[in-house]
Amino acid sequence: MAGVSLGSMPVGFRFRPTDEELINHYLKGKISGRKDNDGVIPEIDVCKFEPWDLPEKSAIKTGDQEWFFFSPRNRKYPNGQRSNRATVAGYWKATGKDRNIKSRSVSGENLIGMKRTLVFHRGRAPKGEKTGWIMHEYRVTNSPEKIIDKVKVDQVCEQFDLYFLVSIVFNCLSLCLCDAVETGRTCDLITF
Amino acid sequence: MAGVSLGSMPVGFRFRPTDEELINHYLKGKISGRKDNDGVIPEIDVCKFEPWDLPEKSAIKTGDQEWFFFSPRNRKYPNGQRSNRATVAGYWKATGKDRNIKSRSVSGENLIGMKRTLVFHRGRAPKGEKTGWIMHEYRVTNSPEKIIDKVKVDQVCEQFDLYFLVSIVFNCLSLCLCDAVETGRTCDLITF
Repeated sequence: MAGVSLGSMPVGFRFRPTDEELINHYLKGKISGRKDNDGVIPEIDVCKFEPWDLPEKSAIKTGDQEWFFFSPRNRKYPNGQRSNRATVAGYWKATGKDRNIKSRSVSGENLIGMKRTLVFHRGRAPKGEKTGWIMHEYRVTNSPEKIIDKVKVDQVCEQFDLYFLVSIVFNCLSLCLCDAVETGRTCDLITF
Repeated sequence: MAGVSLGSMPVGFRFRPTDEELINHYLKGKISGRKDNDGVIPEIDVCKFEPWDLPEKSAIKTGDQEWFFFSPRNRKYPNGQRSNRATVAGYWKATGKDRNIKSRSVSGENLIGMKRTLVFHRGRAPKGEKTGWIMHEYRVTNSPEKIIDKVKVDQVCEQFDLYFLVSIVFNCLSLCLCDAVETGRTCDLITF
């Protein structure tokens, strides 16, 4: 990313990464300490902000309704595996099953990561009110040794489980107040 | 586009222009003689090539299954309006209705162009055999006076109807021999 200005992209270019690219290039790069992607996906603690405050934190300023961040993993309990996904105004609640992300090569498919979908609810569980804000949370599943060769394995192990890559989506189709569905247009952001 | 190297794009960036961008930025820019988009969409006479030979002519080298070109309009008859869309191996046949392309602004919607879809058929009409190659043909509908202010109107008038912008798509879903539909994967190009 070094030397490439997002503002100088030709008209029509958009950030449309595949799940495989998000895991293999961006998230593994972050975990390994690679610095050269900082211009595309910034690091932010997503749960310190309400979802409607996140778009302006994105490095990529476009009309897209999807924004990407690295987020440190906040454990709910020091030794537990559950993440704390509460914000001041509400909480992110997982929905559906986690999906496998596989990398394809000539030798076949390899599991490289997992993708979880969460919906933002206003208020406090279990009485929160569902909103149109969606989070896709990506995490690496490869063993740390496979991630990178230039960084000491113990360093990687320390960082391995500390980051998610998240994409925040405002889902017009579920809660949009405009006529986006009928016209196919992308609606403006709605602040709840 | 000047000074931007397509090869240096960060991972995950792809050319995903809207219809409005194709008409308002690229095609009107071409008609007006603007040179600064040459790196993104090259000019080529699409009917001088078979569709399966076009991907390698694209300026954007990716795994995408859509390729963009400016194409001069070849009139079938010197004073007629029908375009000659035959190649050596077959012909492009229009399908469905032309669709309006509108530009949105605070003052409302304006018709800026039309989009036609054509399917490549091997052989000669009317007995050609349908293939999976699709062409989306974009043309400008604005009056030439509105297109550009820096070029003399008579120059613009001369060029106004001489170019299409076309996107060539290989439609996996209709004729793919691989398992793309079931797996969601993008299949490799198939040469007919």
